[in-house]
Amino acid sequence: MAAELSPQQLSETHRPTLDQALDAIGTRAYWSPHPEHPKAYGEGGAPGSLGPAEGKAAFDAVLNTRLDLGQPGTDGWTGGETSPYGLALGVEYPHADPDVLLPAMTAGMGAWREAGPETRALVCLEILSRISARTHELALAVMHTSGQAFLMAFQAGGPHAQDRGLEAVAYAYAEQVRTPLTADWSKPQGKRDPLKLSKSFTAVGRGVSLLIGCNTFPTWNSYPGIFASLATGNPVLVKPHPRAVLPLALTVRLAREVLTEAGFDPNLIALAAERPREGIAKTLALRPEVKIIDYTGSTAFGDWLEANARQAQVYTEKAGVNTIVIDSTDDYRGMLANLAFSLSLYSGQMCTTPQNLLIPRGGITTDAGDKSYDDVVTDIAAAVTGLLGDDARAGALLGALVNPDVKARVDGAAELGEVALPSRTVANADFPDAVVRTPVIVKLDGTKQDDGAAYLSECFGPVSFAVAVESTADALALLRRTVREKGAMTVGAYTTSPEVEREVEDVCFEEAAQLSLNLTGGVYVNQTAAFSDFHGSGGNPAANAALCDGAFVANRFRVVEVRRQA
Amino acid sequence: MAAELSPQQLSETHRPTLDQALDAIGTRAYWSPHPEHPKAYGEGGAPGSLGPAEGKAAFDAVLNTRLDLGQPGTDGWTGGETSPYGLALGVEYPHADPDVLLPAMTAGMGAWREAGPETRALVCLEILSRISARTHELALAVMHTSGQAFLMAFQAGGPHAQDRGLEAVAYAYAEQVRTPLTADWSKPQGKRDPLKLSKSFTAVGRGVSLLIGCNTFPTWNSYPGIFASLATGNPVLVKPHPRAVLPLALTVRLAREVLTEAGFDPNLIALAAERPREGIAKTLALRPEVKIIDYTGSTAFGDWLEANARQAQVYTEKAGVNTIVIDSTDDYRGMLANLAFSLSLYSGQMCTTPQNLLIPRGGITTDAGDKSYDDVVTDIAAAVTGLLGDDARAGALLGALVNPDVKARVDGAAELGEVALPSRTVANADFPDAVVRTPVIVKLDGTKQDDGAAYLSECFGPVSFAVAVESTADALALLRRTVREKGAMTVGAYTTSPEVEREVEDVCFEEAAQLSLNLTGGVYVNQTAAFSDFHGSGGNPAANAALCDGAFVANRFRVVEVRRQA
Repeated sequence: MAAELSPQQLSETHRPTLDQALDAIGTRAYWSPHPEHPKAYGEGGAPGSLGPAEGKAAFDAVLNTRLDLGQPGTDGWTGGETSPYGLALGVEYPHADPDVLLPAMTAGMGAWREAGPETRALVCLEILSRISARTHELALAVMHTSGQAFLMAFQAGGPHAQDRGLEAVAYAYAEQVRTPLTADWSKPQGKRDPLKLSKSFTAVGRGVSLLIGCNTFPTWNSYPGIFASLATGNPVLVKPHPRAVLPLALTVRLAREVLTEAGFDPNLIALAAERPREGIAKTLALRPEVKIIDYTGSTAFGDWLEANARQAQVYTEKAGVNTIVIDSTDDYRGMLANLAFSLSLYSGQMCTTPQNLLIPRGGITTDAGDKSYDDVVTDIAAAVTGLLGDDARAGALLGALVNPDVKARVDGAAELGEVALPSRTVANADFPDAVVRTPVIVKLDGTKQDDGAAYLSECFGPVSFAVAVESTADALALLRRTVREKGAMTVGAYTTSPEVEREVEDVCFEEAAQLSLNLTGGVYVNQTAAFSDFHGSGGNPAANAALCDGAFVANRFRVVEVRRQA
Repeated sequence: MAAELSPQQLSETHRPTLDQALDAIGTRAYWSPHPEHPKAYGEGGAPGSLGPAEGKAAFDAVLNTRLDLGQPGTDGWTGGETSPYGLALGVEYPHADPDVLLPAMTAGMGAWREAGPETRALVCLEILSRISARTHELALAVMHTSGQAFLMAFQAGGPHAQDRGLEAVAYAYAEQVRTPLTADWSKPQGKRDPLKLSKSFTAVGRGVSLLIGCNTFPTWNSYPGIFASLATGNPVLVKPHPRAVLPLALTVRLAREVLTEAGFDPNLIALAAERPREGIAKTLALRPEVKIIDYTGSTAFGDWLEANARQAQVYTEKAGVNTIVIDSTDDYRGMLANLAFSLSLYSGQMCTTPQNLLIPRGGITTDAGDKSYDDVVTDIAAAVTGLLGDDARAGALLGALVNPDVKARVDGAAELGEVALPSRTVANADFPDAVVRTPVIVKLDGTKQDDGAAYLSECFGPVSFAVAVESTADALALLRRTVREKGAMTVGAYTTSPEVEREVEDVCFEEAAQLSLNLTGGVYVNQTAAFSDFHGSGGNPAANAALCDGAFVANRFRVVEVRRQA
C-alpha cells in the first residue's frame, strides 16, 4: 500500500514543531503548541479540530458501542467503565490473546527501525496532532473516567498531556541523533597508510513497550512513555486502568490510523483491555517480548514490577508524601489562597498534591503579623472554605472522587486526629450521582516523629495534615525523613529567610526532590509544565524516572554499530 | 586551604580538550589526546610525563611498600598480588571499615555538587592528565596484574583507558548541560499579566558509586564508570579485583591528590582493597550509601548484583560468546591473518575475542578458490602458527595467562572435540615463570545445536571453536540464538554477498550486537576505539550498558528544579 502520509509531507507539517520543542527543552522557557482554551478548537480555531459540540457528539457516539481496533489476537470483548459522575460508558474493547498479539506487534519493528529517528518522530507528531484535533472528545473521555472536572480534564488530559507526549518525542529524537548515522574513521599510522573504517550507527528499539495506565490521569501519565517508546523504535502495548480505558483506546485508535496512513504496521501500537479482576498487567509484565514498562500507580505494584520484570527497563511513578514547609511569609493572604487551591484541585487526587503542612507550633512571622500554629491552620481552613463556598465553583475545581477508596479515606480522616476543617458534601447539579467532597484538614503532632504516624503514609485524596513541629529545623528534618523513606513528587516551602531557603534547597538537593518556593500567585505546587518543569526527580522513592529527561529515553533503544574496512 | 588548582587554571588547561572530546563523540571520527607510542612520553615527549626509565623506576619504587592513601576508616593493611609474570608485587593497601569510610565519602558531595558540571569535568580531565603523565608506571602495573604483554598493557591500560575515561567525562558533561542552570518562564494569560517563575536546575549526584574492577583490564574497564560517576557528582569507591589492585590504587592516589589541590575533599574517591577471600563486593554492593555500581566480571555475580543491589543503578559487563560468521571472502589471506591476530591477542583473554567461528561444512568461496570446511580450519590454524612461530614475537602478542583457570581451560580443550590446532607452550626469556600458551582451536559439529553444546558457553581464554554448520542460513540462526541466550560483546562476519551482509546486519539489529564486517587489515574485531566505537551494546545478555553513550551517564545524576515566583 502506498503511504498516504509521505515523509516529505510529514516533514513539512511537523519538522518546525519538532525544532521548537527541541529548542524549548534546551531553554526551558514557556512554550506549547497545544492551546489550553476550549474555544481554540473547532470553527475558527485549530484547523480540522472538533469544536465543543462536535467533540461532545463524538464522545456520545462512542458510548454503548464496540470499539473494534482491528487488532490481531482479539479473543473477545470487555468493558464496563462507570464514570465517577455516574454515567455507565457501555463501551466494549477488544480483549487480546497475548500469544497472538505480541508476535504481531514485533513484526513491524524492522520497517519502523529503518524509518529512522526523524520519520519516527514526525509520525509521532502526526499522531499527537490528530489527538489534539479531538481534544474535546478526549476531554470528555478523561472526565468520565478520572472524575476530573471538565476544564481540568480538557487541559490536563488534552494540551498538557499532548505537551508531555511531544516533549518525550523531542527527547527521544535528540538522544538518537547524538550519534551520527555514519562516520568515516581514519587513524594515522605514522609513515604507513592510516587505518580506515566506514561505520554506521543504527538506533534499534528493545522490543515491546508495555504502558500500564492509571485511573486519575489516563492520558497525562501515559503519553510520555507511549511516545518515548514509539519514537525510539519500540511497539507499544497500552494496558489502561480498567476504570479508565476509553481515553487510551481512542488514543490507540488514532495512532493506528496514522501508522497505517504513513505506511507502517498499525500493530506497532495496540490496546490490552482486561476483563474484571483479570490482572493482566502481571502476566504481560513478565512476557519475554516485553522489554520496557512504564507504570503509574501504587507503590506495591511498582515495587513488584521493579523486582520481577527483570527482562525489561522499568519506569515507575508510585506513591509519595508531599510536604509543604511553612516557616514565614511576606504574603500571608497569597500563601493561604495558593495552598487552598492546591489542596482543592481535583479533590487532592493528584500525585503532586501537598499532604503534610509542617508548621512550627510556636507559630510563624508574616506580613500580617505573627501567626500561631492554630491561626495558620484556621486561616488555611478558612481559605479552603472560602474558595469552595459556592457549589458550582467548588464542583468545577474538585471534580468527583475517583473511587470509593478515596471516599473511605475522607470519611475516616477524623479518626486520625483533631479535624481542623471537616469535609463537606457538594452537590453536582449536572451529575447527581457524582461523589464530590471538599478537603479535610487534620491536626497532627509532628514533634515525636513516630514510625507509625499518619503523616508518614500517603493518604491519597482530599486529606491533608497540619503537622505541628517544634521548629523549622525540625520541619526540615521531617521533610528529609519523609522524602527519603516515602518519596515525594513535590516539595513546597514558604520562608522569608535566605538561610532557611538555602537549607530547604539543600534537603531537596540531597534527597532529590523538586522544590517550589513561596508560591503565592497563579502557579501551584501540584502543576508542572512540559518543556520546562520536571515531573518528579527519579531520585527518591516516589518515582524512579522524571518526566522528561535524557534518562527517560536513553535506554529505550540501543545503538548498533556496523563497521567495515574502508 | 586555598585551592592550588583554580577553576580558571583548569579551564585554560583542559577546556579545549573537553571541547574536542565533545566534538569527537558527535562526529565519531578518529581522535585521541593520549599518544599511543611509548616514546611519546618522557624527555622530548608529553610535558611532565615520565619516560620509560622513570616509569620503571616509579613502578619499582612502589613494589614492597605500603601504599598509604590517607583514607579515613583504614583498619589494617592487605595485599599479596603476584604478577602473571611471576613477580610478587609486595604492595600493601589500606583495608577500609565501610562504616567509617562511606560516611566520610559523602561528606564532600555538597561542595562537589556546587562546583557544577564544568568544574567537575575539568577536575576529571586534570586527573586523567596526571594519569597520562605516568602511563609508563601504570603500564607496568597493568602488565604485572593482568598478564598483558608490555605494549598492550601500555596502550590498552594507558592511552586507550584514558580515552575511555575522557569519553565518559564528555558524555557526563554533555548530559548535565542539556538543561540550563536557570530559566525564566513566562506563561501568557490573555489580557491578564503573564504567570512568571524563575527556575534553577541543579544536577545532583545519587550517592556513592561503587566500581568493581576486573583482573584482565583493571584500568580500561574501570575508568568509564569511575569518571562518569565522578563527573556527575558522585563519590567513587574503587574495589579492585584482588589480583589487580595496583593500577587502580595508583589511579586513586592521583585522583585524591588532584581533588585536594583543586580544593575538594579527597575522599570523593577511595580504594576498598580486600583481604583474601573476604568477598567485600557483596557487602559493599548492598550498603544503602551505594547508589551506583559499575561491574565487569562473571555473569553469575553480575546477575546477582542486578537482582540484589536494588538500591543502586547497576551497570554490568558480563560474559558473552562472540561469533564470527564465515560465509565467503574476496581476501582469503587477509581474513586468515586478521582472524589469527584476533584469536592470539592477549591469549584470547579479551571479552571481545571471537570464540565461535561458524563455517559451512560445504565450504566457502574465496578469491583463492573454493575452500572446504577443513581447508578453512587448517588455514586459520596455519595462520595462527605462522603468527606465533617466534617465541619473542609470540610473547609480545600473547602476554601471559592471567590465572590457573584459564590454563585449565586450555588444557581441557581437547576433551571438547577434535583439536585442529593444539596449544603450544611459549617460553618468556625475561619472565621464566610466566605461563604463556598459544591458542587452541577445536572442531565442533554445529548442525545439531544441542543445548549442552560447548560452543554455547563462554570458554574464556585462548580456546576457540571451528563450528561446522549446514549453511550460512544456519550460521545466522546459531548466531541469533547465541547472542540472544548468551550475549556477545562482538560479532564478525566475512561475506561477499550483499544479501548475506544484510541478513547478518538484521540479526545484529534485532539482537543488539556490535558487528564488524570483512575485517582483513589492521583493525581487529576485538578492538574498539573510544569516541567512535561502542563497546558492547547494552542490549544483549553480555552487558546491560555500552561504553559509552547517553544511557551510561544519564541516570548517574538527577536534576533538582527549584522554582520561585518571579
